[in-house]
Amino acid sequence: MCPERLSHPTIHAHHQHYVWDNAIAPVRTVAPGDTLTFEVNDASAGQITPTSTAGVFDDYDGARVNPVTGPIFVDGAEPGDTLIVRLEHYEPSGWGWTAIIPGFGLLADQFQDAQLRHWSYDTSGSKPLLFGDVAAIPLAPFAGTIGIAPREAGAHSIIPPRRVGGNMDVRDLVAGSVLKLPVEVPGALFSIGDTHAAQGDGEVCGTAIESPMSVVVTLDLAKSASSAMPRMNVPLNAPIGVGGRAIVSTGIGPDLEEAARIAVSEMIDELAREQALSAPDAYMLCSVVGELRISQIVDAPNWTVSFRMPCAIFD
Amino acid sequence: MCPERLSHPTIHAHHQHYVWDNAIAPVRTVAPGDTLTFEVNDASAGQITPTSTAGVFDDYDGARVNPVTGPIFVDGAEPGDTLIVRLEHYEPSGWGWTAIIPGFGLLADQFQDAQLRHWSYDTSGSKPLLFGDVAAIPLAPFAGTIGIAPREAGAHSIIPPRRVGGNMDVRDLVAGSVLKLPVEVPGALFSIGDTHAAQGDGEVCGTAIESPMSVVVTLDLAKSASSAMPRMNVPLNAPIGVGGRAIVSTGIGPDLEEAARIAVSEMIDELAREQALSAPDAYMLCSVVGELRISQIVDAPNWTVSFRMPCAIFD
Repeated sequence: MCPERLSHPTIHAHHQHYVWDNAIAPVRTVAPGDTLTFEVNDASAGQITPTSTAGVFDDYDGARVNPVTGPIFVDGAEPGDTLIVRLEHYEPSGWGWTAIIPGFGLLADQFQDAQLRHWSYDTSGSKPLLFGDVAAIPLAPFAGTIGIAPREAGAHSIIPPRRVGGNMDVRDLVAGSVLKLPVEVPGALFSIGDTHAAQGDGEVCGTAIESPMSVVVTLDLAKSASSAMPRMNVPLNAPIGVGGRAIVSTGIGPDLEEAARIAVSEMIDELAREQALSAPDAYMLCSVVGELRISQIVDAPNWTVSFRMPCAIFD
Repeated sequence: MCPERLSHPTIHAHHQHYVWDNAIAPVRTVAPGDTLTFEVNDASAGQITPTSTAGVFDDYDGARVNPVTGPIFVDGAEPGDTLIVRLEHYEPSGWGWTAIIPGFGLLADQFQDAQLRHWSYDTSGSKPLLFGDVAAIPLAPFAGTIGIAPREAGAHSIIPPRRVGGNMDVRDLVAGSVLKLPVEVPGALFSIGDTHAAQGDGEVCGTAIESPMSVVVTLDLAKSASSAMPRMNVPLNAPIGVGGRAIVSTGIGPDLEEAARIAVSEMIDELAREQALSAPDAYMLCSVVGELRISQIVDAPNWTVSFRMPCAIFD
């Protein structure tokens, strides 16, 4: 257990909710500047355990997924303020999973069979996470879902992100990053979940390296006008395998979503052929490592989406 | 003049064309493995010169833009083959321009007035390109438009990229990169243009640091089956300002194009406020530096687009 964790209150993982709803009673009230540790359950809310097989998806409760721990009432936060979320420290658990869940993911039409892969990893970050004997991936923990309650009453699905944050899955939100969220209800009602040991841009197969962990967070407040969407200030880390080479696939066309599908399909095809991976394994590897970029969005009518995989993971 | 340039034939910039058309007569026939130097005109085809002002767009010929130098007939190339394009070396000119051209760009509705900015830069890459006294940007030359003739007869606009490449604007295509293009006509009919001294992902304002230069290219051939879209193998360079911090804006919603517009608008707003830049200057700076990523494309119905700017450019 790390020193950071001992020095301040812990919000335990049983204080979790499965929808965003500004009527959910806060677990705790804090003053701006307070630091808390959040225990975060994995995205299956414990339905997947280290002994699970892909058969778990035969009887999977899709309403009980992506739990977030909270909510926390920040004293003095009012609509129009900005909640400043400092992600101080992640304490990973050493176990994670990646899955293809039928009906979910960018290429759900092409990958209809359930797949489940377990990861057992060194929590210090000194050793990479191993994808069998095929690939090695650096530990880069962050929370996929960080948000506050929306102003609209009622229950809102936890799955899509919104202007108040939520399931944004921005991999930059590692330790040392700061997230700014536009407050819409008194107290902000902050929650956090969906911790990942690593994730590629796009989270293309629908899951990352889903891993329970604890997160140390400082919640602060700026009374200044909030932005329209979440903003961040993050450490600019080197990409995986910098100094080496990368393979890049492209999708070119008038629809960015379809272009992204093409680029990822092309990469799966390349990895399956060049690295002798099964297509589902290649798809999962893309989901935990790749960079998904919009290379140009001005040369009408066709945009360029590019998907980049570092060669170093295969060394 | 660099040694690489002297050692092999040069295709001069007056051998340029403004549409893709498989009926354009080749300038030269080469054997697979041959190396050539291409002189590349700037994207205005000389309409903009170092003394031009934004008034140049009052009388701009939009049909005479984005010229490509070529085409080159590669002996033995047949439909179904793969053309291997090795980008050996760029020899930048030291002058470039960035513009907001009315009616063009991701935020054309918000930026209706013409803007033109000149860059005079050190061609060795040892000094960054200066955006006034506001920002410094590393030299990172690449060709925005690299392609071959499509199988469909007739003239096809040079502006949109296609499955045979063209105006892809993938910033990874720096020296040392390899581009693989699916051949659709005998001889492939290769051309290259639209050289940039630097470009951000998205090329969001519609232009990069547009700069005439020479490019040394080796054209090779693989008789194996071609891919559906262009693929690349590229050096994985560190991003600008690695080790420092970055600011990140987001656009969250069901339409990726609109989400990208929101993310870029939010960044312009942030830069205008924090760096005391005019909005057009911030927009142009985003276009030559930023990283435009799809952070997640699975949490239906809302996707997350993120736009990242390194803080180091302002140091």
